[in-house]
Amino acid sequence: MSFDRLIRFIDKNGVERYGNVESELSASELNGKQVQLVSGNIESGFKVTDDKAEVAKFKPPKKPVIFATPPDRLTGPLDDILIHPDAQELLDYEGELSIVIGKDGYDISEEEALDYVLGYTNSNDVSARNLHALDVSGYQMGYAKSFNHFGPTGPYLVSPRLVPEPQALQLTTKVNGKVRQSTSTSEMIWSCRQLIAFASRGRTLRRGTLIMTGTPEGVGWHSNGCLEDGDVVEVTIDGLGSISNKMVFQKD
Amino acid sequence: MSFDRLIRFIDKNGVERYGNVESELSASELNGKQVQLVSGNIESGFKVTDDKAEVAKFKPPKKPVIFATPPDRLTGPLDDILIHPDAQELLDYEGELSIVIGKDGYDISEEEALDYVLGYTNSNDVSARNLHALDVSGYQMGYAKSFNHFGPTGPYLVSPRLVPEPQALQLTTKVNGKVRQSTSTSEMIWSCRQLIAFASRGRTLRRGTLIMTGTPEGVGWHSNGCLEDGDVVEVTIDGLGSISNKMVFQKD
Repeated sequence: MSFDRLIRFIDKNGVERYGNVESELSASELNGKQVQLVSGNIESGFKVTDDKAEVAKFKPPKKPVIFATPPDRLTGPLDDILIHPDAQELLDYEGELSIVIGKDGYDISEEEALDYVLGYTNSNDVSARNLHALDVSGYQMGYAKSFNHFGPTGPYLVSPRLVPEPQALQLTTKVNGKVRQSTSTSEMIWSCRQLIAFASRGRTLRRGTLIMTGTPEGVGWHSNGCLEDGDVVEVTIDGLGSISNKMVFQKD
Repeated sequence: MSFDRLIRFIDKNGVERYGNVESELSASELNGKQVQLVSGNIESGFKVTDDKAEVAKFKPPKKPVIFATPPDRLTGPLDDILIHPDAQELLDYEGELSIVIGKDGYDISEEEALDYVLGYTNSNDVSARNLHALDVSGYQMGYAKSFNHFGPTGPYLVSPRLVPEPQALQLTTKVNGKVRQSTSTSEMIWSCRQLIAFASRGRTLRRGTLIMTGTPEGVGWHSNGCLEDGDVVEVTIDGLGSISNKMVFQKD
């Protein structure tokens, strides 16, 4: 049997494991829980085994997970996205709040962070999951997201004057009209202030930089199912409008 | 005629110039030397002129756009590197052959890959290992290498005419004069041809991109020991000259 809800966790011996979770639990409820181990990988397939282990550690990284992608990734709010053959196998969506930086900063404090915001907008952080795995890319996430046009963004850049509290915005992602993600930005692990501060530690955060802030639960991979040729993904954040993009699989 | 070994430097009047160097000199030997000026740029092409100027100071390139790490990372071949407090705990060096791309490409084949090379150079891919770990950064490597000035590169950009086989170059990294890495680029896991082809899959590899090609065995972490305040790291590749940079720990 394949998995229901796959988790990656650290067991009591400090070894990294895959486990299966049969019912929906919060991250804190998972700590200390006995789970059935899952063998295999993304290429061979996953299989739930009879062995069990206790989840010793299941928590977000201590610091934000940050990586960079190139500007050619950006595309417009209503553009079709041509999907390269390398990226069609496990194509996924990630609705995200994005920040555009308005002035250069270095070692920006959390207190001052929002002074550096030029505006807020919607993004779809389109991802080719087949290129994410440890044995494929060493877990480096940027490459799988750096195909041309994999970052549709818009339709507005909304002034911070109109967004006094970026951590209180409802985000909704729909695939072919069906809701797949629906969460408030109050649920973000790291706030916009924290992300801007961390992204400028010892480095110049340049004006014009766009920061995609990460996505909530409900992506396709291990959950709602990956994207197919012709699927339309719509990302809406309250007050920021919507983007809607059709995935068009490139034929060889 | 196009260049043999292109350098960018500051002349006695503080003006940024391009120059051609006919024979291989160390970075320190270049200071004060008369060189022939080179006109043009990456778009129009470069041409060695009859005018000369004296090299007063090297300056980091500002043109190349680096994939996955930001351009502010680059610094010159003899510059001291100011190490931010966040990066001092497990500071490391990585001597690397670097490629600069000369024209835009998309889905470049391995066969044609070297046609896209403008030149080759040395880099030190300076890394803060404390920020690499799974529970810190989710294994994302870019952040730990993206501090300002963590990518010293130079002293020349050497024409492919002078490097007919980039997989047959001896690379040596010394820390305070002691050899820490000594390997041929024939040992690279992925050849320059393969790296260029992969970096352009489904995405536009822009001219001006600098690709650091990865480092051989002998780094500090789990091996020769990490870097301390005042350590000097020198990277030399046969035919490409040397870079030499002192690590200067920033005091809080």
